[in-house]
Amino acid sequence: MTATFHTIAFDADDTLWHNENLFEEHHRKYCQLLAEYHDAETVESTLFRTEMRNLELYGYGVKSFTLSSIETAIKLTDGAIPAEELRRIIDFGKDMLAHPVELIDGAAETVADLGQTHDLILITKGDLRDQERKIARSGLASHFKHIEVVSNKNSEDYARIFRRHGIEPSQVLMVGNSLKSDILPVLELGGYGVHIPYHLTWEHERVETVPNEHSKFHEIASIKQLPELLASL
Amino acid sequence: MTATFHTIAFDADDTLWHNENLFEEHHRKYCQLLAEYHDAETVESTLFRTEMRNLELYGYGVKSFTLSSIETAIKLTDGAIPAEELRRIIDFGKDMLAHPVELIDGAAETVADLGQTHDLILITKGDLRDQERKIARSGLASHFKHIEVVSNKNSEDYARIFRRHGIEPSQVLMVGNSLKSDILPVLELGGYGVHIPYHLTWEHERVETVPNEHSKFHEIASIKQLPELLASL
Repeated sequence: MTATFHTIAFDADDTLWHNENLFEEHHRKYCQLLAEYHDAETVESTLFRTEMRNLELYGYGVKSFTLSSIETAIKLTDGAIPAEELRRIIDFGKDMLAHPVELIDGAAETVADLGQTHDLILITKGDLRDQERKIARSGLASHFKHIEVVSNKNSEDYARIFRRHGIEPSQVLMVGNSLKSDILPVLELGGYGVHIPYHLTWEHERVETVPNEHSKFHEIASIKQLPELLASL
Repeated sequence: MTATFHTIAFDADDTLWHNENLFEEHHRKYCQLLAEYHDAETVESTLFRTEMRNLELYGYGVKSFTLSSIETAIKLTDGAIPAEELRRIIDFGKDMLAHPVELIDGAAETVADLGQTHDLILITKGDLRDQERKIARSGLASHFKHIEVVSNKNSEDYARIFRRHGIEPSQVLMVGNSLKSDILPVLELGGYGVHIPYHLTWEHERVETVPNEHSKFHEIASIKQLPELLASL
């Protein structure tokens, strides 16, 4: 059987360009800043709980992360942290927003290549301004027929996007690093999912079960292998 | 001459629901918090400068405003402000995000009414998550054919939106409270603009010149007058 899909949808953060490494760097500096008050494990777990509690209100992205980092630092120090140290947390966040976009090895070539034969869509979640800036800086925008910045990526969100563009979900192949946000929702809608793990995964994006048995699920180690995989389907 | 337009585009904040009043309330509490350090005028002007400096990086919205408020408070107190007071600024921001949507008097009826005869679009700028939440809570979403949350509203942004939906700009009538963000860019593209001033205007949205002489520009005092105005065009 030959697979039929005419649309390839790409996640962006940690699929086309590096992102989680910036958060890791923030975490490292943040734990250092709070080291005189608490061990890194306590800092990390408290920050994660704050982020999860604020997720509904704040949504994803660097500004949300910065606000939760400040809130957590105040809580973990019982208000003893000097304002100047909180100012450093604001600066960490600004550094992340201003950081150059570093493409994943092979992303530019693969996207340009597949753009010749398929309709490409970019579907990314997070902060609107920040994602738009990264898309512009990536130099990849012109390859995509549609670019969607959304606040969440569950199957309903994907269904809405595909409906808006008149795309049959079974005709979509989605490529991304997050099983939870990129792959499982699209498989659920009847589409194809290609998982390309990134070497770092935010705890919130982790899932227990990999859908290895699913006939429309594939996993590759690098985006460079995508054209070859597609040719084999 | 009878005016021809088949699409009515609405701004959201301070056009369909109250928004600037929440920011005013934050400003009041914020100046109170810093009153022992500086007079309100100094606080306001410093906060505004911080917001403008951060606008390119942060974009619009409550989270950006909260981060700029924290940064300004640290600066204005030379780092002397206790962390617990900065925590209150975070809480002000959360209160704004969690605040119920209060529709402008007449907005629900007018939108429902005009939705019978025209294609309606909602075009709002700001934080994606926050705007989506307000749209959902407003109860007005079903009247709009398209809903666009954008990071900026200049004439290029409008042109992109209209192009995406196959709408001729000269066929659009845009309704909003901001001359700068809602009216002037659409007039520039050849569309109609109906200005409905809100009793509060953020300094950043103020413009000197009102396009009173423009044949496609109209100003009304209340959204309730919109159907009557449209009938007269």
